[in-house]
Amino acid sequence: MSDIKSTSFLDRALRNLKGAWGKIAGPQKDHDLWAISADLSEDDDEIRLKDQMQACLGDYGGEVSARARAAALGHAYLALNAAGRLKFLKLMTESFGSDPVAVEQAMEDVLHAKDLSGRQMAETKLRHVLEPPRTRLLTQFNALPDGVKFLVDMRSELVGHLKANPELKGIEDDLKSLLNSWFDIGFLELRRITWNAPAALLEKLMVYEAVHEISSWDDMKNRLGADRRCFAFFHPRMPDEPLIFVWVALVEGIAANVGELLDEKAPEQDPETADTAIFYSISNAQPGLRGISFGDFLIKRVVDSLRRELPALKKFATLSPLPGFRKWLSGQIKLGEVVLTDDETKALLAGDEGDAVAALESRLSTPGWHEDDGNSVLKMPLTRLCAQYLLSQLPNSGTALDSVAHFHLTNGSRVEQINWLADTSNKGLEQSAGMMVNYLYELENIEANHETYRGAGTVSASSAVRNLIKS
Amino acid sequence: MSDIKSTSFLDRALRNLKGAWGKIAGPQKDHDLWAISADLSEDDDEIRLKDQMQACLGDYGGEVSARARAAALGHAYLALNAAGRLKFLKLMTESFGSDPVAVEQAMEDVLHAKDLSGRQMAETKLRHVLEPPRTRLLTQFNALPDGVKFLVDMRSELVGHLKANPELKGIEDDLKSLLNSWFDIGFLELRRITWNAPAALLEKLMVYEAVHEISSWDDMKNRLGADRRCFAFFHPRMPDEPLIFVWVALVEGIAANVGELLDEKAPEQDPETADTAIFYSISNAQPGLRGISFGDFLIKRVVDSLRRELPALKKFATLSPLPGFRKWLSGQIKLGEVVLTDDETKALLAGDEGDAVAALESRLSTPGWHEDDGNSVLKMPLTRLCAQYLLSQLPNSGTALDSVAHFHLTNGSRVEQINWLADTSNKGLEQSAGMMVNYLYELENIEANHETYRGAGTVSASSAVRNLIKS
Amino acid sequence: MSDIKSTSFLDRALRNLKGAWGKIAGPQKDHDLWAISADLSEDDDEIRLKDQMQACLGDYGGEVSARARAAALGHAYLALNAAGRLKFLKLMTESFGSDPVAVEQAMEDVLHAKDLSGRQMAETKLRHVLEPPRTRLLTQFNALPDGVKFLVDMRSELVGHLKANPELKGIEDDLKSLLNSWFDIGFLELRRITWNAPAALLEKLMVYEAVHEISSWDDMKNRLGADRRCFAFFHPRMPDEPLIFVWVALVEGIAANVGELLDEKAPEQDPETADTAIFYSISNAQPGLRGISFGDFLIKRVVDSLRRELPALKKFATLSPLPGFRKWLSGQIKLGEVVLTDDETKALLAGDEGDAVAALESRLSTPGWHEDDGNSVLKMPLTRLCAQYLLSQLPNSGTALDSVAHFHLTNGSRVEQINWLADTSNKGLEQSAGMMVNYLYELENIEANHETYRGAGTVSASSAVRNLIKS
Amino acid sequence: MSDIKSTSFLDRALRNLKGAWGKIAGPQKDHDLWAISADLSEDDDEIRLKDQMQACLGDYGGEVSARARAAALGHAYLALNAAGRLKFLKLMTESFGSDPVAVEQAMEDVLHAKDLSGRQMAETKLRHVLEPPRTRLLTQFNALPDGVKFLVDMRSELVGHLKANPELKGIEDDLKSLLNSWFDIGFLELRRITWNAPAALLEKLMVYEAVHEISSWDDMKNRLGADRRCFAFFHPRMPDEPLIFVWVALVEGIAANVGELLDEKAPEQDPETADTAIFYSISNAQPGLRGISFGDFLIKRVVDSLRRELPALKKFATLSPLPGFRKWLSGQIKLGEVVLTDDETKALLAGDEGDAVAALESRLSTPGWHEDDGNSVLKMPLTRLCAQYLLSQLPNSGTALDSVAHFHLTNGSRVEQINWLADTSNKGLEQSAGMMVNYLYELENIEANHETYRGAGTVSASSAVRNLIKS
Repeated sequence: MSDIKSTSFLDRALRNLKGAWGKIAGPQKDHDLWAISADLSEDDDEIRLKDQMQACLGDYGGEVSARARAAALGHAYLALNAAGRLKFLKLMTESFGSDPVAVEQAMEDVLHAKDLSGRQMAETKLRHVLEPPRTRLLTQFNALPDGVKFLVDMRSELVGHLKANPELKGIEDDLKSLLNSWFDIGFLELRRITWNAPAALLEKLMVYEAVHEISSWDDMKNRLGADRRCFAFFHPRMPDEPLIFVWVALVEGIAANVGELLDEKAPEQDPETADTAIFYSISNAQPGLRGISFGDFLIKRVVDSLRRELPALKKFATLSPLPGFRKWLSGQIKLGEVVLTDDETKALLAGDEGDAVAALESRLSTPGWHEDDGNSVLKMPLTRLCAQYLLSQLPNSGTALDSVAHFHLTNGSRVEQINWLADTSNKGLEQSAGMMVNYLYELENIEANHETYRGAGTVSASSAVRNLIKS
Repeated sequence: MSDIKSTSFLDRALRNLKGAWGKIAGPQKDHDLWAISADLSEDDDEIRLKDQMQACLGDYGGEVSARARAAALGHAYLALNAAGRLKFLKLMTESFGSDPVAVEQAMEDVLHAKDLSGRQMAETKLRHVLEPPRTRLLTQFNALPDGVKFLVDMRSELVGHLKANPELKGIEDDLKSLLNSWFDIGFLELRRITWNAPAALLEKLMVYEAVHEISSWDDMKNRLGADRRCFAFFHPRMPDEPLIFVWVALVEGIAANVGELLDEKAPEQDPETADTAIFYSISNAQPGLRGISFGDFLIKRVVDSLRRELPALKKFATLSPLPGFRKWLSGQIKLGEVVLTDDETKALLAGDEGDAVAALESRLSTPGWHEDDGNSVLKMPLTRLCAQYLLSQLPNSGTALDSVAHFHLTNGSRVEQINWLADTSNKGLEQSAGMMVNYLYELENIEANHETYRGAGTVSASSAVRNLIKS
Repeated sequence: MSDIKSTSFLDRALRNLKGAWGKIAGPQKDHDLWAISADLSEDDDEIRLKDQMQACLGDYGGEVSARARAAALGHAYLALNAAGRLKFLKLMTESFGSDPVAVEQAMEDVLHAKDLSGRQMAETKLRHVLEPPRTRLLTQFNALPDGVKFLVDMRSELVGHLKANPELKGIEDDLKSLLNSWFDIGFLELRRITWNAPAALLEKLMVYEAVHEISSWDDMKNRLGADRRCFAFFHPRMPDEPLIFVWVALVEGIAANVGELLDEKAPEQDPETADTAIFYSISNAQPGLRGISFGDFLIKRVVDSLRRELPALKKFATLSPLPGFRKWLSGQIKLGEVVLTDDETKALLAGDEGDAVAALESRLSTPGWHEDDGNSVLKMPLTRLCAQYLLSQLPNSGTALDSVAHFHLTNGSRVEQINWLADTSNKGLEQSAGMMVNYLYELENIEANHETYRGAGTVSASSAVRNLIKS
Repeated sequence: MSDIKSTSFLDRALRNLKGAWGKIAGPQKDHDLWAISADLSEDDDEIRLKDQMQACLGDYGGEVSARARAAALGHAYLALNAAGRLKFLKLMTESFGSDPVAVEQAMEDVLHAKDLSGRQMAETKLRHVLEPPRTRLLTQFNALPDGVKFLVDMRSELVGHLKANPELKGIEDDLKSLLNSWFDIGFLELRRITWNAPAALLEKLMVYEAVHEISSWDDMKNRLGADRRCFAFFHPRMPDEPLIFVWVALVEGIAANVGELLDEKAPEQDPETADTAIFYSISNAQPGLRGISFGDFLIKRVVDSLRRELPALKKFATLSPLPGFRKWLSGQIKLGEVVLTDDETKALLAGDEGDAVAALESRLSTPGWHEDDGNSVLKMPLTRLCAQYLLSQLPNSGTALDSVAHFHLTNGSRVEQINWLADTSNKGLEQSAGMMVNYLYELENIEANHETYRGAGTVSASSAVRNLIKS
């Protein structure tokens, strides 16, 4: 059995579309889709596009022809510049929304349905009427060679336009709903990525990595060493594009410092004897899939896969940044909400009189502070404040202040350990004052932790962390 | 890079769900999903199932837990007998439909939206509210190892129940809509099937073949000879299940007799010198995908693929049955609508007096008539009546009387040639009086033919066929 | 990365060989290789072939050209009939043997070498000189699309000719030595074959099966059920051709009857709970690889693979025929070597007077005897004689009388159990009087058993079997 | 069907070898192979190894056991350091050579054979006796997980030792002969390598590239752009190791400058419109395969593959270095063999008096000379001398002076064009004085050119190049 590529089939189908355009739009408008300007600034450009969109929705020549026209339309979109694309998207939104009259009629029918069965049919009808034609147009782009990636990227652009063009919310919603269905977790494939993966794929990981920048191919190779693992989810129709990926270090004991993990000169751990898997970075790769979440599944499937590959592994934990900590701390200081213990105060002031909180802020604001041994006095107060930050929740929702914390707590982990001077990269110092945290995933407590957090609205934490606050 | 199977991941996740059930349903109901009876006849059975369905929709323990519960529910469904499954489906329909109050409120909001943007948001809201929870439940079954096949088969069962249980129309509609999105043509893979295909797959083709029964493995091997082709569409998540498949014979000139094509003793044609590809059978393999059509795409992609593989091919035509012809003819005779020419009359009566139409009917009704040379007098009138049948259309819709004709005309082919004694199998004699027809696919006329048929409401036919009627 | 097929590369290279032939053989002999007769009966045929063989060995046009000429020569061979091929092989043998003068000179040089290093160089030289040019010619056929299969089949033909044409022994030896190197066990791939294997491959297994005939595709499917396993060795350059394959049944306890194993109606055993793997058939598929043995490796790798897949398996045994037993028994009877016990005698004569041994022979010679309950008196003596047969060895070599026994004893198994009425197929009755034997493979005793047999010259057997003889 | 890895099968077999060692070598020598020192400096080390080698050749426990012992021996070899490995190789050579007595007896038998058939059998016998046992030992290493690579690397080490240890020539010869059989061109797979190839493979290409160093991953990616091609031969049992690879640039017209080809900033050529394929680098990747040549096949299969992929390609040429030119030129100057034309002399001396040849040498010896416009006077004489160099041949053999020229001329190309300042890298200036040459491969002249060179002993060259000398 052999697969037959559809890549160029529609292109050939397209070449056979003789006069298709003219037939639809009348001979007087027999213009060429390829002649439109990149920013749709010519008089007829938008009219031509709208005609073509109309033609895609029409049945002229049958379904294959319609798809071929959609492919042409998709190619036209790709040839536009940013301004042109925005106009294109607006055109689709405005001209191919649902029909208000039909919607109202269908709502009437729902209200006046005589029995349950009638009501059900009326609701089905209403749902169809509410589905705007542009959704069908979007679906048709799936016939493009890389149609799924095309749509994911289109949504990425739409999301970028939303603030300035709220009227695009409708089509963005349609597209998200379509992608949500197509990217159901049941369709995704988990793959392990090694140094034997295609260079083109590794190059993409370098670009997509969002937590700890990959500085070179040597750095990349080091992250794919024998004591490391990388896993990603893929969609069968986007086989070269990772959706989300996670980096794991196999170590002994819970790792407390990401710099050490990434050190290219560090010796390799024998993976067979490692007892702990540290998830030190998770990145979403496709902004066009924002709001469609795979992270929970990724972590748990990777834990499952690692447990079977390496039975010696006993603990699964993250080593995570606290992206909002430094900002929160400054805010607390400004609000006068930071209270220090006597010991902390004494240490921070080093015997002098003064404002210990201001001293803390001042020390933290001095460039290079983390390399000054004298600043070890910051360890106690920062660790304690960090615990306080992590266990804080928004008043009504019970949501953790820290977005990364929220993600891992929702997934059923708990706050396990807080680490001082754990990420001394510029970004680490700037966002997290160099602090990092381990979230611990214990299979037998995942559901309970999830419920503690989402149900009872409390953050699960180890007693060590919890004690930090009590003190 | 290596793929990691998710098959048993959820099973393991399931084993980790400690007390999940009890937590939801209360300790007093800590019953076991595996203990329900096959026909759901025990008192608590339906209550347990409904609880579990509810639990799947709930967030308890996070999304992975919910999917694991859905997998358990899916396994429970598979363990039920026919009666139990019907109850299961009814339960889902009744208990997890849309919320009428919420629907009405959302419709109100649409009507009272203040501006376009508000209206749009309200419509989006309404769409979400109209989507019944059971749709989400259906989606969750996708997490089963063969989740897509599970749902396709579930729809097949639903379709079978519709007549007797019209209240299932709602959930059947939901499922169709889900499958319609997942089976978009852009996701399907075209594969050529040869004698090197897995035996398990060929065995399925033998079962699924709907036009010309495959009588043995030798027959199968003969249909996969060097001068034959077989193509099928597959879905990436159902890689062992063909969706639709087509059989092609490479011949010289348009084939007029299917028995000759299938003759295992016939010599092989050199495919490089064949000038015509005959599509002599197309079968849909999945009743659960009824109404989601791939046939047009299949034929055209196969034509495209063959043209590139074998440049000597000049003609692409079907050799098709007329499944409704014999029945139509009897009806016409009863209605007295059949008019014979003088020559036909003379020949049919063989010099005697009498009712020529009755003679025709009588000859056709005699078992073994096709082996009697004396019946060659039937050739002319049958061929002519066959042309008349093929070119007939339903009064209002313009749809061809014959379903196969409707399919091929919609795809843009034309009626090319009518063949006498072309299929003398029992089925061929019974349904089509042994007649067959070639539909011709000409790339440059496909769109025009489609438009002639769908637009202008006329059947395209060769002048030879057209002349048959004029005479 | 993508593989690029070499299949037709040499064909194209061949078309570019302009005048190559003429240049070598002179313009007057510019004949066409394609014009030779199928049995090489025309005057010039052998001359032309010999010229072409010469040309393959020559360097004209470089190595690619030489290979292209060899490909042409190979195609010419394939086009010959049996008589033509025999002539072709004789031609190669006679005309392209080693050069006697050069051999003698090289032997001289070996004898007169002055030191060790000189001797070594001289020996190397001698080895090269002894390698006849036809070996290089054989190697060049490897450039044919299925070159390895071509050579394996050529050897199969050679082996068939040996008796009548002993002069072919030389080239047969050359070819065996070449194949021995290419089919080193390190190159072979073990594959499990399931019902998902290509139909074309399963069809070959049906043809190649040498022990228990596969009667139909249903029979085949049954042998590939969930409680069965089939494994085969393949060569990377003959990926569609099994070299040797073995059938395994997963059962509880040591199986004593092959008819029950092959019964299509028998219920399936759960493979996870089976404690015994029965190897009930091993077949060599390529007569051209006679004398190059893979059986020992196959059995041990399959045992290893099964142990890992199914940890519940505790025993690994064969259920084997005794292909020489019936013949041996008749011989023993004729020689008057068969001695029966009193009990056996009494039972066989059923109270009457007479010759018990003759009665035994007579009963065994009656068609259908195995279905006659009265013949249960044969059980004891046959089982005992069977043990005697299995434990018998050829006087000097210590080799077991039975060829299958020799194979399994060499591999390190022992005779475990003798089974009465275990194979009542025609072949089973004819060759083995319906008896079968289990050879037991115990990992921890394999080496010891091998040494017992090959070193000490004794057959290893269970005490049960050993006791049969003592009695 | 699924493949079953043999990787660890022998390891497990090894663990089952209980007492194997002791049995062979006697209880008093029950030492451990793993305890030998890395440089074989301990007293017993060599004895232990020799015992194990002996054990590998013996039949104890059957063939699987013997292979398992060979695998252990192979692992032991890998654990040795350079000194230890050399001792190991010497041990194999000395202790497992052919048996001189048996050889002499077999030679006697050849001489005294009574007839042709007897002679043939005696020769076969002699060949077997001449094959030293160490060859069988080498073959057995093929059972190691990467056995083929193991042997290729072992030969690479042997080749390195030859000069200092000529007694290793024997075993090196045995190994070459083994590899020659296993690496027959018929077994090799041609693959195209793209940016989607495994990073681990691309990393190897960076290491193995022998002509134009690959300076970075960006450089690598550029060499794999849309207008570039890279092809390599692989062996099925060394799938991750290229044997030889070639880099191709698709351009318009014959490229005259490699710096331009490798310029990362140069715009991409549309491959569909390119008319010329430039082979600008070929590298052998495995020193252990020295003397086993694939280059001719590689170039011609790549030409064949490109012609089919890109029909617009009309010319296939190399852009090659002249690695011996600069050295040859200095030699010629020293010998006073360089004669300049009047025009060249005048230009080189720039109007002054003096020794023009010395001026030429002096200019060429000035660092950075190639960037000095004044040195354009070198173009004429250098180009002419370069032509002279390329067309020069060694007196008796007719072999071209330049090794690269010899390779391409043997393959049937001709010297087409000489390029000034074509490679101004350090290496290019040093070896070739910046000159490069195009060899042209014309399908219809390949055989003739080969014959011109190998048969008639003349270098084929374009008239332009030929004219350079005449002048």
